[in-house]
Amino acid sequence: MKMYQFLKTRHHKEFMRDIQSQFVKNILTDVCTNPKESGAAFAPSNIALCKYWGKRNPSLNLPVNSSLSISLGSLGTRTEIRLHDTPATWADRVYLNGQLQPPESSFVQRVTSFLNLFCPMLGNVHFEVRTENNIPTAAGLASSASGFAALVIALDDLAGWGLDKKQLSMLARLGSGSASRSVYDGFVQWNAGSNSDGMDSFAEPVFKPWQEFCIGILELSDARKPVSSRDGMNRTVETSELYKSWPQQAAADLKTIRAAIESQDFPLLGKTAEHNALSMHATMMAAWPPLLYLQPETIEQIHKVQRVRSKGLEVYLTIDAGPNIKLLFLEEDEASVASTFPGLKTIKPFGSC
Amino acid sequence: MKMYQFLKTRHHKEFMRDIQSQFVKNILTDVCTNPKESGAAFAPSNIALCKYWGKRNPSLNLPVNSSLSISLGSLGTRTEIRLHDTPATWADRVYLNGQLQPPESSFVQRVTSFLNLFCPMLGNVHFEVRTENNIPTAAGLASSASGFAALVIALDDLAGWGLDKKQLSMLARLGSGSASRSVYDGFVQWNAGSNSDGMDSFAEPVFKPWQEFCIGILELSDARKPVSSRDGMNRTVETSELYKSWPQQAAADLKTIRAAIESQDFPLLGKTAEHNALSMHATMMAAWPPLLYLQPETIEQIHKVQRVRSKGLEVYLTIDAGPNIKLLFLEEDEASVASTFPGLKTIKPFGSC
Repeated sequence: MKMYQFLKTRHHKEFMRDIQSQFVKNILTDVCTNPKESGAAFAPSNIALCKYWGKRNPSLNLPVNSSLSISLGSLGTRTEIRLHDTPATWADRVYLNGQLQPPESSFVQRVTSFLNLFCPMLGNVHFEVRTENNIPTAAGLASSASGFAALVIALDDLAGWGLDKKQLSMLARLGSGSASRSVYDGFVQWNAGSNSDGMDSFAEPVFKPWQEFCIGILELSDARKPVSSRDGMNRTVETSELYKSWPQQAAADLKTIRAAIESQDFPLLGKTAEHNALSMHATMMAAWPPLLYLQPETIEQIHKVQRVRSKGLEVYLTIDAGPNIKLLFLEEDEASVASTFPGLKTIKPFGSC
Repeated sequence: MKMYQFLKTRHHKEFMRDIQSQFVKNILTDVCTNPKESGAAFAPSNIALCKYWGKRNPSLNLPVNSSLSISLGSLGTRTEIRLHDTPATWADRVYLNGQLQPPESSFVQRVTSFLNLFCPMLGNVHFEVRTENNIPTAAGLASSASGFAALVIALDDLAGWGLDKKQLSMLARLGSGSASRSVYDGFVQWNAGSNSDGMDSFAEPVFKPWQEFCIGILELSDARKPVSSRDGMNRTVETSELYKSWPQQAAADLKTIRAAIESQDFPLLGKTAEHNALSMHATMMAAWPPLLYLQPETIEQIHKVQRVRSKGLEVYLTIDAGPNIKLLFLEEDEASVASTFPGLKTIKPFGSC
């Protein structure tokens, strides 16, 4: 049985659960619980400029490579969480954008299974979770990143643990790898770490604001992904021969992007981020069965970006595990980029709007 | 200077020419020239099931990896060549599909520069070349493969050298790598070889006919490629980190495809050929600047092939350095495949039509 098939089995799920529970216990050792009635938090979405692709440990969401992202300011997830000390027959209640979600939905399953990891510290409890995304869910805009980051920070607020950002980043990572980066604003680096216990794999801020830096979201499809990032990643690691060269490329790209942020060298940053994203999609295309998140509209826009750049417009792209394209450009080109790509939603991670 | 830029320089062209002339001289040692008035030949086009991608020696067109193709029967190039013992001011005259081509066109330049390699053996001569393709030129249907194979065989006929297929394959290789395979019908393997003199890099027939084997050409665009295969290959080798894993994959795929031909295991052949082609395109997508021969229509058809296959239709695809798709299927599915993909041109390499 291939690893990506094994990961779907009941046996593996229980095994995974034990490892995760132990990890949570390690983090919360020596932490006092002083629960309030409710907790709340906001966490920004983030877009990786050097992508996270491939796990070295699927139970603890430990990545093969370090990654680097930019948080999206006010675009993200706001979550409120309440404790209900109710009979065990009651289940958690989870609202998404005001709508109570069916308990059997994969969304509720993921949230509940994550929260259950914390029950030993909180007693025989149930939760009511209200979460609001101001970004489309599961359209390659990483709502699980801001979602799990906001959930963990809200839970910390509720429980009164007073965890630091490093601890929050590691707990968010358990819910979704890229959530480890959404506990910070601005440029954020998630260090892969090398320990098997996962205690050295957390995000850190880069502390280098870049006022002129813009991101443009080109939403080409809001359809849900046919294959989740998690499954896609596992399939790639297992079946893509070309993936073997990915870790070296990601390490080199991360170094270059850090240097480009330091020196505010935008063409270097843009070029490296685009090369990194297309290389990640290349590892997927070389998986079996082939993983092609790219849609015809995506290809059309990739060609368009190449074309307008060859005519002098300094615009680059990145693409996550989905069909949508994110453009990278500087504020001075905002008008030209907006008129070239109608319908673009521009975000200024360090700016006023 | 990067290698792919160096390859464009005048200095390199002269250097390359000397190496090629020496190679031709090596092949034609001990061969007698008995020229006739004209020579003629036909060579089939071929489609690689395990792709040739990347040169270990660009002057001699020595490949990084061995490859395996299927020749397209009566689809290909017919070439007639005549000798003109005329004053040196006269240039070669090259006709393509009945039209005299401008001497400064890249087509004529390539043909002339290839033929000049043979002038030392033929004296102070000029050529009239008439070449007819029954496939679109430069649309990813490898007209240069059948073109250079037909040219070499016609030249051998004209000069009366009586070269064997192995020698013809090596000479055709100098004009275009994949032309080395177009000197044979059926399944053909081009051995990469390892010698630096290029004398062990030639094609051989697989001798295993497969009557039911069908290829469907889905012509999505007849536009000329923005980047030639030659340039694309060099750019990939120079700039694509993921390319480093390509040689191992190609070696494994070749072995699997040979085994699938031996045992007539069509799903194994189809799956391996599709995986190989998409992996080759993945190495290009991971080059910089990104090389994306795929067009929106290509992506649409890739998704469609995956979709219909998941519903039970045993059809696979392969794609060369261009936007067009070639389908692989067995005769028993011919009607279903034709009705699913309108406009498909079906070829039976071993069949009657």
